[in-house]
Amino acid sequence: MKIGILGVTGRMGRAIGNAAAEAGVTVAGGIDREGAVHGDYADAASLAAASDVLIDFSAVAAFDEHLKIAVEAGKPILIGTTGLQPEHHATIDEAAKAIAVLQSANTSLGINLLRGLIEQAAARLGPDWDIEVLEMHHRHKVDAPSGTALLLAQSAAKGRGSTLQELSRFDRISEHPHAREEGTIGYASLRGGSVAGDHMLIFAGEGERIEFGHRADSRAIFARGAIRGAEWLKDQPAGRYTMVDVLGL
Amino acid sequence: MKIGILGVTGRMGRAIGNAAAEAGVTVAGGIDREGAVHGDYADAASLAAASDVLIDFSAVAAFDEHLKIAVEAGKPILIGTTGLQPEHHATIDEAAKAIAVLQSANTSLGINLLRGLIEQAAARLGPDWDIEVLEMHHRHKVDAPSGTALLLAQSAAKGRGSTLQELSRFDRISEHPHAREEGTIGYASLRGGSVAGDHMLIFAGEGERIEFGHRADSRAIFARGAIRGAEWLKDQPAGRYTMVDVLGL
Amino acid sequence: MKIGILGVTGRMGRAIGNAAAEAGVTVAGGIDREGAVHGDYADAASLAAASDVLIDFSAVAAFDEHLKIAVEAGKPILIGTTGLQPEHHATIDEAAKAIAVLQSANTSLGINLLRGLIEQAAARLGPDWDIEVLEMHHRHKVDAPSGTALLLAQSAAKGRGSTLQELSRFDRISEHPHAREEGTIGYASLRGGSVAGDHMLIFAGEGERIEFGHRADSRAIFARGAIRGAEWLKDQPAGRYTMVDVLGL
Amino acid sequence: MKIGILGVTGRMGRAIGNAAAEAGVTVAGGIDREGAVHGDYADAASLAAASDVLIDFSAVAAFDEHLKIAVEAGKPILIGTTGLQPEHHATIDEAAKAIAVLQSANTSLGINLLRGLIEQAAARLGPDWDIEVLEMHHRHKVDAPSGTALLLAQSAAKGRGSTLQELSRFDRISEHPHAREEGTIGYASLRGGSVAGDHMLIFAGEGERIEFGHRADSRAIFARGAIRGAEWLKDQPAGRYTMVDVLGL
Repeated sequence: MKIGILGVTGRMGRAIGNAAAEAGVTVAGGIDREGAVHGDYADAASLAAASDVLIDFSAVAAFDEHLKIAVEAGKPILIGTTGLQPEHHATIDEAAKAIAVLQSANTSLGINLLRGLIEQAAARLGPDWDIEVLEMHHRHKVDAPSGTALLLAQSAAKGRGSTLQELSRFDRISEHPHAREEGTIGYASLRGGSVAGDHMLIFAGEGERIEFGHRADSRAIFARGAIRGAEWLKDQPAGRYTMVDVLGL
Repeated sequence: MKIGILGVTGRMGRAIGNAAAEAGVTVAGGIDREGAVHGDYADAASLAAASDVLIDFSAVAAFDEHLKIAVEAGKPILIGTTGLQPEHHATIDEAAKAIAVLQSANTSLGINLLRGLIEQAAARLGPDWDIEVLEMHHRHKVDAPSGTALLLAQSAAKGRGSTLQELSRFDRISEHPHAREEGTIGYASLRGGSVAGDHMLIFAGEGERIEFGHRADSRAIFARGAIRGAEWLKDQPAGRYTMVDVLGL
Repeated sequence: MKIGILGVTGRMGRAIGNAAAEAGVTVAGGIDREGAVHGDYADAASLAAASDVLIDFSAVAAFDEHLKIAVEAGKPILIGTTGLQPEHHATIDEAAKAIAVLQSANTSLGINLLRGLIEQAAARLGPDWDIEVLEMHHRHKVDAPSGTALLLAQSAAKGRGSTLQELSRFDRISEHPHAREEGTIGYASLRGGSVAGDHMLIFAGEGERIEFGHRADSRAIFARGAIRGAEWLKDQPAGRYTMVDVLGL
Repeated sequence: MKIGILGVTGRMGRAIGNAAAEAGVTVAGGIDREGAVHGDYADAASLAAASDVLIDFSAVAAFDEHLKIAVEAGKPILIGTTGLQPEHHATIDEAAKAIAVLQSANTSLGINLLRGLIEQAAARLGPDWDIEVLEMHHRHKVDAPSGTALLLAQSAAKGRGSTLQELSRFDRISEHPHAREEGTIGYASLRGGSVAGDHMLIFAGEGERIEFGHRADSRAIFARGAIRGAEWLKDQPAGRYTMVDVLGL
């Protein structure tokens, strides 16, 4: 398999390159943020043609251009770019009619495995099992709860036949003390030091707790997961996929 | 549903009675360790006839007699008795040709849910994910690792297409320091205070860890799980089942 | 040592009685919520006279009356009643001029040991170590963060030469994402199931985390700590004390 | 302050250099494993003379030579070299009559803070609080339990007026199931993935658990702690010190 890296000189682009080398996957080349093509190609179209899968972890600003390259070349694309808005998701849905697109805000294997299993757990445990999500990240992270905490909660909500919007409650600590509402999902966020990212989703029942935890040492796990995702994606028909599909869950 | 409790006056027998009351399940009656029948019945056969399911959490000494009562009455039986030996399992296999038998050394919902999910996880994560099992129990527990730790590990081994015997290594702390062997399962046991029972199975990969944890507040969870198991078992055909089957995993 | 229990028929009053029996401490008698005296005494004054220490875990409504009994009898009193207001604390300060008064919102040994040690840790670790407090309680608990989480944070603030009011930030999860402010203390609360009470105070530095954790199995630990506190208190001169003093920290 | 780094080109030597730069500490120069002097010095003696403190994280083979340089120059030395044998400790004791020597097998601030606090906790909690030590490290670590787990246990044993040798029990998981012996210290070791090093010392009492935990992201924390230790050491009189002394505990 040969991959083309969109955003090849960025932090994640280089991590993808390292993970590819680790996994014995060939990097055909890439495109940097200025649009320059890396590798021995006349232009982006030639690079795409020479790649089996494209991987894009760059920036929202380049999103439309990158997706267009994939569609025009008829090549699968794995998108790990964060900060996507509803209009980007609509563009993906459209592109997925022609090519295979895998989009995920967290491409680590561990988190996606947990997503699949948490959905199953939520489907089997009744609303008398309270769902809580806990996460800890380094002191510089501004948003809370983390996007990954919301992904885990989304899987739990899906397993319950509901949605993140419907079940989430973000006001645990508030000026108005209130009892926990049955069936809802609560969140707790810790920030401090240099923690790369710890997550835990808890089902708390009468007399017992079930905990699904994930601890990340470094961001390299996103690149490793993306390579595994790309290997799976290159053989898929047109359609929109997630990393949970890669695991067959 | 009406249940008959074998070992009705023992600690677990009473817990089963409490859990039944909690769940709105009727207790038809029971048999105590001296063989006396509780409830308005002429004998054990009449009690069994009046019950939809029998639940046995008594002692190995009464095992054969209890199973015989179920077989003769043609009633499903859920067995939570611990300390069963190979000969008891052979007897269960034989009985399961005639009636539905669910046997489990740990009937809590949480542990059995985890067993099903851990098997799936192990099947999807390669041998480069190291499997370790950690448990903590009160200071009086003599065996280590706990039977439940072995159940969790067994599910992981099954997911890898292997067995507990094949993969388990119990000599982490030994006079002969040695490296971890790829593909094996390691164990760590803590004992102290009055801890009812904490378990965690870890998949440790390069850069990330996935943790499946369970914390028990009290032994009442075994009784609650048994009631849920009995409700499921009463409608099953002859055969041998586990609590994982109850959860449909 | 003989103890007199104020609120002797309440849930905590009975727990104090059990813990006394466990520790081989004599219960002289008690007073119930209707003011009736239990034991062979003419009145509350006689009961107090016959006791070495009084223990009060009853209700705010009875607080003034109970403290008055102790002052008039000149006996030490340990107060574990929760929900005290500033006026109650002023009354305690006044009473402490005449008798020994130990007041604590959490009388468990573990939490108070941690309070003393956390204060020392905070005094030695600079503001580049971020302080976060995490707690989990059962689904029915209405206030968040827990009073005990605030006690732990208070010890950390004191170690930094500051106050809870000064350093606490309760808006981690809010509509306005914002960076962590150096030197502050953050909070995270989980609610679910039947959890008796778990607490953790974290110092998160560059590359390492220090965690001070406490897990409670049941509320009996408050009664046990109160008995140990009473044994210490009976020999103290007039003054106001805390459970941290009992541990000599 | 100017430091001289013994083993300057090794992995830890370079980490010390980075940590010094981070902390604004000047590196006078160093000596590599071949004995070559780095920096503008005629020989090792000149380098030592130009340094306020020497830091040695090299190898046992160079230990005697390095300590001799410090003694001859009359300069304080911080030793983080692991694998020291009784004869090396005897040499340190002798050298400490002439110069200040700080030797520690784990120079992280977090671990040493915990050591001081654990000793205090153990002195205040009776033998009815069971002590257990848990640690997890990467799959390649051969010895178990870790040296740091033993350091934590040693502090607990000291707080109890005993020794590591006296209280340690390493046979929890054995062919001969046995009850926990009161007053002993138990160990549990996990190995897997790329975990840099997690430790937890638990005091488990009736109804409650107190946990002292430490999580390391990377080995850079040892270098950072060494720099802080060196800053403290440069002003100390001759004598033998530990990192716990640096924290004033």
